Amino acid sequence: MAIEGRDEIHAGRIRLGMVGGGQGAFIGAVHRIASRIDDKFELVAGALSSTPEKAKASAAEIGLDSKRSYGTYEEMATAELARDDGIQAVAIVTPNHMHFPVAKRFLEAGFHVICDKPMTTTLAEAKELAAIARKAGKVFVLTHNYTGYPMIRQARAMVAGGDLGRIRVVVAEYAQDWLAERAEDAGSKQAGWRVDPAKAGAGGAIGDIGTHAHNLATYVTGLRVETLSADLSTFVSGRQLDDNASMLLRFENGAKGMLWASQVAVGNENGLTLRVYGEKGGLEWSQEEPNKLWYTPLGEPRRLLTRGGAGAGPAAAAVSRIPAGHPEGYLEGFATIYGEAAELIRAAEAGRAPPDGLALPGIEDGVDGLAFIEACVKSSDEDGAWTRLGR
Amino acid sequence: MAIEGRDEIHAGRIRLGMVGGGQGAFIGAVHRIASRIDDKFELVAGALSSTPEKAKASAAEIGLDSKRSYGTYEEMATAELARDDGIQAVAIVTPNHMHFPVAKRFLEAGFHVICDKPMTTTLAEAKELAAIARKAGKVFVLTHNYTGYPMIRQARAMVAGGDLGRIRVVVAEYAQDWLAERAEDAGSKQAGWRVDPAKAGAGGAIGDIGTHAHNLATYVTGLRVETLSADLSTFVSGRQLDDNASMLLRFENGAKGMLWASQVAVGNENGLTLRVYGEKGGLEWSQEEPNKLWYTPLGEPRRLLTRGGAGAGPAAAAVSRIPAGHPEGYLEGFATIYGEAAELIRAAEAGRAPPDGLALPGIEDGVDGLAFIEACVKSSDEDGAWTRLGR
Amino acid sequence: MAIEGRDEIHAGRIRLGMVGGGQGAFIGAVHRIASRIDDKFELVAGALSSTPEKAKASAAEIGLDSKRSYGTYEEMATAELARDDGIQAVAIVTPNHMHFPVAKRFLEAGFHVICDKPMTTTLAEAKELAAIARKAGKVFVLTHNYTGYPMIRQARAMVAGGDLGRIRVVVAEYAQDWLAERAEDAGSKQAGWRVDPAKAGAGGAIGDIGTHAHNLATYVTGLRVETLSADLSTFVSGRQLDDNASMLLRFENGAKGMLWASQVAVGNENGLTLRVYGEKGGLEWSQEEPNKLWYTPLGEPRRLLTRGGAGAGPAAAAVSRIPAGHPEGYLEGFATIYGEAAELIRAAEAGRAPPDGLALPGIEDGVDGLAFIEACVKSSDEDGAWTRLGR
Amino acid sequence: MAIEGRDEIHAGRIRLGMVGGGQGAFIGAVHRIASRIDDKFELVAGALSSTPEKAKASAAEIGLDSKRSYGTYEEMATAELARDDGIQAVAIVTPNHMHFPVAKRFLEAGFHVICDKPMTTTLAEAKELAAIARKAGKVFVLTHNYTGYPMIRQARAMVAGGDLGRIRVVVAEYAQDWLAERAEDAGSKQAGWRVDPAKAGAGGAIGDIGTHAHNLATYVTGLRVETLSADLSTFVSGRQLDDNASMLLRFENGAKGMLWASQVAVGNENGLTLRVYGEKGGLEWSQEEPNKLWYTPLGEPRRLLTRGGAGAGPAAAAVSRIPAGHPEGYLEGFATIYGEAAELIRAAEAGRAPPDGLALPGIEDGVDGLAFIEACVKSSDEDGAWTRLGR
Repeated sequence: MAIEGRDEIHAGRIRLGMVGGGQGAFIGAVHRIASRIDDKFELVAGALSSTPEKAKASAAEIGLDSKRSYGTYEEMATAELARDDGIQAVAIVTPNHMHFPVAKRFLEAGFHVICDKPMTTTLAEAKELAAIARKAGKVFVLTHNYTGYPMIRQARAMVAGGDLGRIRVVVAEYAQDWLAERAEDAGSKQAGWRVDPAKAGAGGAIGDIGTHAHNLATYVTGLRVETLSADLSTFVSGRQLDDNASMLLRFENGAKGMLWASQVAVGNENGLTLRVYGEKGGLEWSQEEPNKLWYTPLGEPRRLLTRGGAGAGPAAAAVSRIPAGHPEGYLEGFATIYGEAAELIRAAEAGRAPPDGLALPGIEDGVDGLAFIEACVKSSDEDGAWTRLGR
Repeated sequence: MAIEGRDEIHAGRIRLGMVGGGQGAFIGAVHRIASRIDDKFELVAGALSSTPEKAKASAAEIGLDSKRSYGTYEEMATAELARDDGIQAVAIVTPNHMHFPVAKRFLEAGFHVICDKPMTTTLAEAKELAAIARKAGKVFVLTHNYTGYPMIRQARAMVAGGDLGRIRVVVAEYAQDWLAERAEDAGSKQAGWRVDPAKAGAGGAIGDIGTHAHNLATYVTGLRVETLSADLSTFVSGRQLDDNASMLLRFENGAKGMLWASQVAVGNENGLTLRVYGEKGGLEWSQEEPNKLWYTPLGEPRRLLTRGGAGAGPAAAAVSRIPAGHPEGYLEGFATIYGEAAELIRAAEAGRAPPDGLALPGIEDGVDGLAFIEACVKSSDEDGAWTRLGR
Repeated sequence: MAIEGRDEIHAGRIRLGMVGGGQGAFIGAVHRIASRIDDKFELVAGALSSTPEKAKASAAEIGLDSKRSYGTYEEMATAELARDDGIQAVAIVTPNHMHFPVAKRFLEAGFHVICDKPMTTTLAEAKELAAIARKAGKVFVLTHNYTGYPMIRQARAMVAGGDLGRIRVVVAEYAQDWLAERAEDAGSKQAGWRVDPAKAGAGGAIGDIGTHAHNLATYVTGLRVETLSADLSTFVSGRQLDDNASMLLRFENGAKGMLWASQVAVGNENGLTLRVYGEKGGLEWSQEEPNKLWYTPLGEPRRLLTRGGAGAGPAAAAVSRIPAGHPEGYLEGFATIYGEAAELIRAAEAGRAPPDGLALPGIEDGVDGLAFIEACVKSSDEDGAWTRLGR
Repeated sequence: MAIEGRDEIHAGRIRLGMVGGGQGAFIGAVHRIASRIDDKFELVAGALSSTPEKAKASAAEIGLDSKRSYGTYEEMATAELARDDGIQAVAIVTPNHMHFPVAKRFLEAGFHVICDKPMTTTLAEAKELAAIARKAGKVFVLTHNYTGYPMIRQARAMVAGGDLGRIRVVVAEYAQDWLAERAEDAGSKQAGWRVDPAKAGAGGAIGDIGTHAHNLATYVTGLRVETLSADLSTFVSGRQLDDNASMLLRFENGAKGMLWASQVAVGNENGLTLRVYGEKGGLEWSQEEPNKLWYTPLGEPRRLLTRGGAGAGPAAAAVSRIPAGHPEGYLEGFATIYGEAAELIRAAEAGRAPPDGLALPGIEDGVDGLAFIEACVKSSDEDGAWTRLGR
């Protein structure tokens, strides 16, 4: 039952810096754990907070050398560039509005970038960053982490391999309930910036979680959304951004879809689900039970494929660590993004092509995500007019 | 654990006739079983098929007195009217296009009517039938049978009682896969008429199953759909009507909704589900596990309410027959429609008000269903324009 | 999707009497509904209670002709025997201690018998009744109703057909919680007699529900339990009979088993489950979701077989009424017992062999059930000594 | 939604060595990932295999300094003791028969020990090792990793807090299917030693997985098993040890239990489940969905408690890393064992009491596990005689 690793010789740890992720942040700790799980990174520097005392305390809390705990990201970029043992890559885990300037700075300074999503706060910024990244020739990885789940890889491989035939219908949902009341008034740092357009961008629920659902739908089906018709709502009074979004989708091959993103759906914790139906079969997956994938070949009984189990193929196995029945979770999926990012970075630094089979989201997915957000807002503003994604 | 019945004295069986439901029909047998379960009806006459030999054979098969097996519904109406022991009510279980003429004939002849859904094939017919029914003063029951499930009654009572607070979001789905291929070419009588606009009306999946999802959403929430934006598709080539429909809904109180009806969603047998989210709580129900209702009060753990269990109240108990943990199913839910129809008919015949607590769909729901179908078709024809339901 | 019935011509209704099942009884109403669902019986006489007023009121409540509502079962046997249109069969739905005398009386009078389980209160009585039944040459059906579920028929057919290979392990459970406190003190008629050895016999939980689990295990596997080692407990103080029983089983082919019956397992409503594992595959079934059967062929993904679905075969189809995805429940399973009883009775009255494919529990299963109860009590009294079932 | 860590200042990494866990081993990689997740250990030395070339290759594969890759554990103990920066603790991840000599050597040399289960191959060895550990005064942690799951901590806290009242019934299961055929002949290293009594000890399934089920039952309930009656079977021919075990349990407070461990239950991947029923409530947990805990207070609806959700308390929160709805899995549970081991080691080295709230299995649990295995074998050899656990 052992799952074999990809490397025969340990290739050493990539030196990583982090921007954001200080005390009280959720996603910074997630990135740090994810970077450690497969032992391919070593966190050696950080600008963990824009508040100097907090940056210092945060660095002490995670055991970062105080000399490499910086007050600002600019300072970190400059100082690390000057070191022989400076960082090779940076993880950007700030609120959304800082993704662009930080990523720009580090890409232009010659660092590889691992950036949280959504990539920027506007489509224009996203396109500009894409141009910067292309020019810099550095690795840019966007942590649409749900693409790291083995059974998502399995689903993607099955669609690509034709098991479902031509895709007809895609239903993507991401339902939560943590913003059903004004969590932003209760001192939640997480809630605070997510409902603030200056920090989050034009999308509330669509930016925070809708982009994940959109990304997952396109990642698994290999189809892009051409146009959408959206209805955004703000149910909690006093809030500026959407907290519920429902929309119809039309994909490039003629497939039809629905997408629902809500942060007011009481009873849902992190209900990201994807259902894909083709001429020859159907697939259903839920993030809260990520080791399972329901597969129904047309005219046959439903089958429950499991990570590591009899029905799972090489795409899932390549990103699994433990045998079937031992659940892998969110952090392992996230770690897979880091693991594949390491492969890309090593290949880039060695001037060789990356290994086959990597499948992680990057700069184009980031542009696509912002195109999605802006199309949602525009369509909703125009009473649901079908709106083309402006990539 | 005994569930007490509503009557102390058995009130005798109502004499029932049936139009449609001959050999090879699915829904006729369902109506017959449903009418027997609570022992309030006795089937005594029928015009089971428009083909005389088949009508005769069908009558023999179900043990109907051959003298009261009629060749046409008109003949049955005339003959039964002339008998002292003639039928009191008729069940109409034909393909859709016959609902209107048969219902009209029997209502005008003074019979009570129990009619399958959708009520007619056009909204104009539906409105005309509503006028006829009002004038006739007879009971008209529409078998939106899923409203008979105890946990749907429970959900409805909870919404009405304020357990969810103001409703924000409603997600209704009805997914099947039996028309994923051309079942109509394989000799399925069920498929044959459902995909034929001359018999089914303007709606394919939206008429056959979408109307159930729409009805259930309004039944549970007590809210009407004001406008909708629909995208109807026909995925199976050569088919004239929609086999997949996705739409956005706006309810009269400002709630938003989504509705998906599909007959090509491979892996779904009879996936009717309803999710309702309000300011104070959420409810989730699935027809394939009808004895369960998920309820989450805001900020508390999810609770699994069960038919007959600790969390179920009087609305569910009133339509339950057996203790918790012993599953009741589709036929029992259907039987509840018949049981309540019997109560209405007895009250009407006795000139008294019906008992409190009945909650079964009738003529207005039928009009609403056709308004829904026509709005779907119109909206989809106009590329998803928000369209008002024309009641 | 229509499910074809077995008969082409309706064969008329069998005239049925009932002993027990008056007001406040749960199981009497269940038998009555079950007898009506497939329209093969007509209830025409009853001795519904040993209390005359209650018998009369109960008869009125269910619409029984008052002339055929009797004060005692003896009176009913005599009177019905004298009528030309007297009952053909009797349903015995009393507390356990009355099963033997009533069944004896009716069998000897020449009636067919449908009797609730456990068949008697002692093994000696059970064997005596078996001899009486054989001598009488009448049909005797024991309502181990869970054998009527389509997916139990499917499981049985799969084991018989070799899909699982040689059976190795059987795990049967029946967990409830309704006796976790002294329901018998709270006026529950159901609880009252079940905890009274004079009425229930030597078994508490093992008699009431353990016999169902035992019966189902043997029914599905086709294997008899040779010996068992039991540990019976009474957790609720003041109670005389077991309310929790755990035991190890050894089957005739060398298979091993476990059986757990509990009425104090808080959170379980009617948790009857069966798991069977053989050399080539495994099956898992739960009564609370009876339309599903999990099947895993060795080395392949788990498959969810559903009633009416692609993986269900003729044994399930023969006892199904409606298409896949429309749940059938407890009452339909019970009705299948009645439907097959009708076939047996008609064949017996016509002097012909019963149709193939019937599979309903009878007198031998009743003896086996009492052998099971007595072995449990004996083994537990002897501190778990392995005890042979004394058939 | 951020989950706060326990430390404000990162306390540095504990230097860890590993014995066993070379190429092809499953559990070594698990220990390594687990040791990294919370960043409290650094693996700096290893004797990864008893085959020198394999030890070397394994070290290279995981990036271990070749100078600290040793050919034998004795060599490693000696060399590391001599270094100023030598290891502080050792993780023992060999087949069972090596646990005792390795643990003895390292404890006596003054190292802390983290050891896989079962602790030894005989009860005598276990008791001897307990004496050695007490004398050495070093930390000894046994990786019964399932105790690290947050919802197991929650369950334990609820029982301890009286939410269930007096415990009556405990049902523990651990069902797998990977040894349903002779995997040992197919070259599986995992299978090979597990079915060999010289390496595994006297227990097959009971040693490998039964001990986990036993440990979990006692861990959650706080009750020890006094006596048991076991029936061990070997279904796969040619195998020397049990591959299926069923048993009855009696706990010290009068509670009754059942335990089933099987490696031939086709369709089960890693089916460790625990159900606990008390006078006031019931709990149900399954390892394959570890973030959920079903809780039913007597007379109320079932509640689904989730890791991080509204119903989870401080015991669960203390070992959680991410918000509700983002599944944590097997590796995180394992990491919690390492995290708490680090706390114990730091406290020991600082000569202070360990922090409150730690709850990880140690030497006494190891003795208990061997007492369990030996009692199972003895009871089964004596045809299920009730056998006392010989602690």
